Amino acid sequence: MNNAIPYKIYLTEEQMPKAWYNLRADMKNKPAPLINPGTGQPVTFEDLKPVFCDELIKQELDETTPFIPIPDDIRSFYKMYRPSPLVRAYCLEEKLKTPAKIYYKFEGNNTSGSHKLNSAIAQAFYAKHQGLKGVTTETGAGQWGTALSMACGYLGLDCQVYMVKVSYEQKPFRREVMRTYGAKVTPSPSDTTDVGRKILAEFPGTTGSLGCAISEAVEAAVTQEGYRYVLGSVLNQVLLHQSVIGLETKAAMDLYGIKPDVIIGCAGGGSNLGGLIAPFMGEKLRGEADYQIIAVEPAACPSLTRGVYAYDFCDTGHVCPMAKMYTLGSGFIPAPNHAGGLRYHGMSTTLSQLYHDGLMEARAVDQISVFEAAEEFARVEGILPAPESSHAIRVALDEAIRCRETGEEKTILFGLTGTGYFDLVAYEKFHNGEMSDYIPTDEELQASFATLPKIG
Amino acid sequence: MNNAIPYKIYLTEEQMPKAWYNLRADMKNKPAPLINPGTGQPVTFEDLKPVFCDELIKQELDETTPFIPIPDDIRSFYKMYRPSPLVRAYCLEEKLKTPAKIYYKFEGNNTSGSHKLNSAIAQAFYAKHQGLKGVTTETGAGQWGTALSMACGYLGLDCQVYMVKVSYEQKPFRREVMRTYGAKVTPSPSDTTDVGRKILAEFPGTTGSLGCAISEAVEAAVTQEGYRYVLGSVLNQVLLHQSVIGLETKAAMDLYGIKPDVIIGCAGGGSNLGGLIAPFMGEKLRGEADYQIIAVEPAACPSLTRGVYAYDFCDTGHVCPMAKMYTLGSGFIPAPNHAGGLRYHGMSTTLSQLYHDGLMEARAVDQISVFEAAEEFARVEGILPAPESSHAIRVALDEAIRCRETGEEKTILFGLTGTGYFDLVAYEKFHNGEMSDYIPTDEELQASFATLPKIG
Repeated sequence: MNNAIPYKIYLTEEQMPKAWYNLRADMKNKPAPLINPGTGQPVTFEDLKPVFCDELIKQELDETTPFIPIPDDIRSFYKMYRPSPLVRAYCLEEKLKTPAKIYYKFEGNNTSGSHKLNSAIAQAFYAKHQGLKGVTTETGAGQWGTALSMACGYLGLDCQVYMVKVSYEQKPFRREVMRTYGAKVTPSPSDTTDVGRKILAEFPGTTGSLGCAISEAVEAAVTQEGYRYVLGSVLNQVLLHQSVIGLETKAAMDLYGIKPDVIIGCAGGGSNLGGLIAPFMGEKLRGEADYQIIAVEPAACPSLTRGVYAYDFCDTGHVCPMAKMYTLGSGFIPAPNHAGGLRYHGMSTTLSQLYHDGLMEARAVDQISVFEAAEEFARVEGILPAPESSHAIRVALDEAIRCRETGEEKTILFGLTGTGYFDLVAYEKFHNGEMSDYIPTDEELQASFATLPKIG
Repeated sequence: MNNAIPYKIYLTEEQMPKAWYNLRADMKNKPAPLINPGTGQPVTFEDLKPVFCDELIKQELDETTPFIPIPDDIRSFYKMYRPSPLVRAYCLEEKLKTPAKIYYKFEGNNTSGSHKLNSAIAQAFYAKHQGLKGVTTETGAGQWGTALSMACGYLGLDCQVYMVKVSYEQKPFRREVMRTYGAKVTPSPSDTTDVGRKILAEFPGTTGSLGCAISEAVEAAVTQEGYRYVLGSVLNQVLLHQSVIGLETKAAMDLYGIKPDVIIGCAGGGSNLGGLIAPFMGEKLRGEADYQIIAVEPAACPSLTRGVYAYDFCDTGHVCPMAKMYTLGSGFIPAPNHAGGLRYHGMSTTLSQLYHDGLMEARAVDQISVFEAAEEFARVEGILPAPESSHAIRVALDEAIRCRETGEEKTILFGLTGTGYFDLVAYEKFHNGEMSDYIPTDEELQASFATLPKIG
């Protein structure tokens, strides 16, 4: 054991990043622009103004400014739960008897339980700064909704969350956390919007979907004076805010002269992975260093490993702009037995471009092996991980075991995005042997690809 | 805002305590000894040997050694989740517009969700060190059972938890966390013990009680080769291990020249309060400094404020030694609507003696006001507190508001023992206005006192 490196590296508050890093500024091949489905042209500031906050649109469209200062009020909020620890997994290394050195950046030490809070406070701040009354959003399992509720509760901003009805009913505890922070949580579909009423009339027994919740949240934003819609992943602005993860990680590693060989992150819409790798990928893009970067996705929802790189709708309701990304088709829904999260059909345009350019790899993993990794990790490192995060754990374990076999002393870094305290129904299924793997067939994917718009 | 003091003060791993502090060594009036109910005499090492681990009995009976070294293996485990942050509650101070300076020591940043892990790992370590196969215990809401499961999972020790049946059924998520760590969780009463079978035969529909679960756990320990019973609060050994909380707090405060005027902790059996105040009370006992120390208990279970100081049974089954303590009688059960935890009928003998000697105060608070404080704290400081911890928050808020009125710039320190992620049924009741206060009447307490044994 190298005593020079502590179990947990904490930056001081002074050492925390003072600006977010905009990875796009260093990309030669910029991500393809969002397309307005009405005009078929790249979206403009004016196109997005009714839906998003002004400052966030500027960040969304800014491909050239490398560093964007973090406002003092956001830094103050960050100090409530950041810097997050960079953990040296001594116990895990010993258990695996691997010569590899394993590090993870742990983002779960806050009540929202995940990294989502990093962008939630930024988006809520800009809404408040613009003089808005409130924001609307959708949430599935509830991580993002909880994070946004916390941010809005802190700033005194109204927060309206459309929660997929099946989650609203099956995850009452997530709902109660949001209520504790003063958010108004509505099961979706609801009778509070036109689109909700229409869906309820057509499918009276429906338990909802994320696509429907998005449509309701967007309608609620554009029909109420002083409201905007906010989103927790996929968008470039979200990756920008999440760069705080990678910047802190790199600063902590630099303090001790640590250089990772492999960087691993789970990928749904891409917010965590994009944030974690940002400064490392920046060095890679500028030719200053090289890193092996691995995106890990569920085999049940394999957008990078089995999707196509094409323009697609970002939402199932087709109300949002279209994006060029690795996608399974906007109608794709993972098998019902999938419990690992990361269910989005597409992937951040920035990450899609980087993957397309061969700057990162992707692996798809089966969920039973993911929960096995989660349990092994929990017992040795003491943290009960979120199923999402456990995708990264799975591949980190695989890499560390490979090092044991080859004798390589690689330095492995992965992102531990959050805790699994609200995912114990999935853990229970795993313990009871009721969990199964399901990988979509080629035929199913082909049928889903057929729904892609003809563009680009 | 004083910029010299960060939001969170973390000690380095080198600065973490290397020995626990045994407060009894500095007490002139030692706590009264435990009494063997069979002999009527003070318990001996031999009396306790069939039930507890040898080293833990030594710690239990040691009233003179001020510092007991923390074994390296326990310090390594502590490093997975310690040092815990000492937080300067800048946001709360601003919200309250108080001139008071508020600090809290946060013990919830670990998967067990509370300070209980500090003693769980120590007790599991000594069991392992003695060559035992496993340990047994009881758990009510599940905090202690979870902590012990984590500790045993880490050390590869068998862990058998008797969980009060009503909690087992109503808190399946706590149960799943314990299973993740490899513990065997049995709803109590069960048919695995004589006492359980007897109770089941007599009361077929019973949902169990902590007293019954203790009896089952003790029976399981003494009837299985290589097993001992462990307990998460009340005992002197537990207060000893929990002194790590206060030692870290004091070290962090000393780094910045901070001296608290008021120290506040919630008190059920006394493990958190005893740990938090230990080094401060030590200074007070030695005449080196003075502090106002306040124990906060639920009005529904007011052992210090309305109990009697007398010998009583530690458990409802009357299988454990008797202790001289502030008690409501071993048959006392808080009203069914009580959701705030801290339900134990008695109080640590050490804390009872200190309270009896006028070295600390006690306040009882109503649960609705406790949940109001919890919600206010959550919104401003970002952490969803456990109901238990929120008793301390309530009094800290009261003190800070009093300072606003008097203009006093007091420094307030309180213990935030854990998070409320598994207590959302209680939060839901609070949000829905279904929570009520219930304070036992004098007649009810007198009836309960009548069950006290005639001794001492």
